[in-house]
Amino acid sequence: TRSFRIAAIAGDGIGKEVLPEGIKVLEAAARRFGLALEFTQFDWANCDYYLQTGAMMPPDWKEQLSGMDAIYFGAVGWPATVPDHISLWGSLLKFRREFDQYINLRPVRLFDGVPCPLANRKPGDIDFLVVRENTEGEYTNLGGIMFPGTEREMVIQESVFTRHGADRVLKYAFELANARPRRHLTVATKSNGIAISMPWWDGRADAVGTAYPDVAVDKQHIDILTARFVLQPDRFDVVVASNLFGDILSDLGPACTGTIGLAPSGNLNPERNFPSLFEPVHGSAPDIAGKGIANPIAMIWSGAMMLAFLADAPGADGARYRAAHDAILAAIEQSLRDGPRTADLGGKATTAQVGEAIATLV
Amino acid sequence: TRSFRIAAIAGDGIGKEVLPEGIKVLEAAARRFGLALEFTQFDWANCDYYLQTGAMMPPDWKEQLSGMDAIYFGAVGWPATVPDHISLWGSLLKFRREFDQYINLRPVRLFDGVPCPLANRKPGDIDFLVVRENTEGEYTNLGGIMFPGTEREMVIQESVFTRHGADRVLKYAFELANARPRRHLTVATKSNGIAISMPWWDGRADAVGTAYPDVAVDKQHIDILTARFVLQPDRFDVVVASNLFGDILSDLGPACTGTIGLAPSGNLNPERNFPSLFEPVHGSAPDIAGKGIANPIAMIWSGAMMLAFLADAPGADGARYRAAHDAILAAIEQSLRDGPRTADLGGKATTAQVGEAIATLV
Ligand SMILES: CC(C)[C@H](C(=O)O)[C@@H](O)C(=O)O
Ligand SMILES: CC(C)[C@H](C(=O)O)[C@@H](O)C(=O)O
Repeated sequence: TRSFRIAAIAGDGIGKEVLPEGIKVLEAAARRFGLALEFTQFDWANCDYYLQTGAMMPPDWKEQLSGMDAIYFGAVGWPATVPDHISLWGSLLKFRREFDQYINLRPVRLFDGVPCPLANRKPGDIDFLVVRENTEGEYTNLGGIMFPGTEREMVIQESVFTRHGADRVLKYAFELANARPRRHLTVATKSNGIAISMPWWDGRADAVGTAYPDVAVDKQHIDILTARFVLQPDRFDVVVASNLFGDILSDLGPACTGTIGLAPSGNLNPERNFPSLFEPVHGSAPDIAGKGIANPIAMIWSGAMMLAFLADAPGADGARYRAAHDAILAAIEQSLRDGPRTADLGGKATTAQVGEAIATLV
Repeated sequence: TRSFRIAAIAGDGIGKEVLPEGIKVLEAAARRFGLALEFTQFDWANCDYYLQTGAMMPPDWKEQLSGMDAIYFGAVGWPATVPDHISLWGSLLKFRREFDQYINLRPVRLFDGVPCPLANRKPGDIDFLVVRENTEGEYTNLGGIMFPGTEREMVIQESVFTRHGADRVLKYAFELANARPRRHLTVATKSNGIAISMPWWDGRADAVGTAYPDVAVDKQHIDILTARFVLQPDRFDVVVASNLFGDILSDLGPACTGTIGLAPSGNLNPERNFPSLFEPVHGSAPDIAGKGIANPIAMIWSGAMMLAFLADAPGADGARYRAAHDAILAAIEQSLRDGPRTADLGGKATTAQVGEAIATLV
């Protein structure tokens, strides 16, 4: 059976601390389940590299990564020395666009052992997926400033949506919902305020949805939708959203389950024309970086998502990869129940101790 | 001392049920504190009117309302018969723009007697104000569709920000923060993803902020900011945001305090060149309309906000109006502790019973 080439990119801050733990767990899973993963470390796509070279990545970054099956990514950004728009647009957001990772998949789940900020919710109540459009929409640098520096200054910011871009993320979300027992899809919108793109987006959801008569569709304006994440989180199964709305919902969802330090994500190119990228939702966390106390679980869970994605690759021995995914998830669950805890969960364990504990459980 | 002319516009659905209770309470307060309020009812700006006439409002709506000191507004929208973009853009959003109500002020507060969806929060922990830009930004119908109806279809949606528009709302928010004991201002942004308007918005916040050295400014990206509403709601004092971000935060905030049915708002033209508008944050609620069970507290609290705004009008006997505002707030608080409750708060009382109880307490 085939092997997989994984680019390991630590990035900045706690990215450098959690990535090794993620690899540790993946290597443990590889030994136990007979997976063939080859890791290659890349020391660029971080702010130190930028300060040395004036660019976040070498000119041939795309060639270097194109032969990879996946990118296992820590976190990027070090605002004290490099502005976010340079570090992020020069690496992470570039990957998402140039590797056409048009799905950003982010699970939201309540775990036993993780204090929930919502009252009266128990594990099992909250378990849904946010599917975020990841390449277009509100994230653009199109537009400009008229009469700059004067009292008359005005700014145009353009969002760009395409049928190609909207339909494929909606289709992905409908497929996902259709394959789950509840078959429920929430579509985030704001067609009552954003008058061109959002009514159009609603129309695309209707059009794509006709092929999925068994999926119940619930369109919600983003304002009340954020409210319902807090008030009725058990209502959700799959939630599909534009780039900006998906960004918001996939931070808010983990906040509602107390898992903002645990939440993983997959930036997927489902056609596998390019490598997909797996990273924690959290950032580089300058405030705790360098202390060895960051929680590695988001990184480890992202690794499990990577295995689930590789399982479906042509020629893969899918069953082994899926079993390894399940084993890592089970190890995370068990470790959250009674294993060592980092400071964010009220414990005193180091990043390495948590990584070690989970690797042992796999 | 001067009197005030108030336009009372019920709108649709539960707007028609809660408005009379709001007026009942304001009239009780007027009697007790010697206020001079003259109400005039308007039977347009509702969907029935649209179905009869083909427009949400008569051609001379602006003349009819321009002499008013304030608009006391129920809720508009009845999506089953009139699309939202017609009902909302034809009334509420028109008022906000044409009457230059550029501040949307929305308090977020945890009350004794209201079950809080967040664990371990008690009254006093959460008490902040959302200041939303209310006339420009992301809410536009500028842009369009290229290659419509084809596979190549693409959509441009433009947001428009002006220095005039941004500076005045930022200034209002800084003034408000400066006058409060904590002197803390959170500025919502998303400059790491929305690459033209949001870095510019951050720059305007810096520029306006130089005049307020005593206000501590905390810029937060909207994704993590929504998460912090859930995780650290005690952190906030005044929060200023663009039209869209303010819309989201001012639904999410009340959700976090369990007060989505209680939250009031003021759409303010601080210069008083045009009437300001006071309305509940909730909508017309078609699902419960016509049953007489809607909670009137958001409407009543909005009335109190109206009195606080009128208190500062030239020639007003401000002390009376402020005292009336405080008395209504105290009556709401007491009623939430031990008065009759509508179904949304787990009770069986009617809209009128709650209105009556609060009017009696004022
Ligand atoms: C860092 C930032 C540009 C990024 C985004 O907004 O997409 C992050 O918040 C995320 O969600 O991955
Ligand atoms: C009804 C809608 C257009 C409106 C808005 O988005 O402004 C509402 O949500 C509000 O917050 O007042």
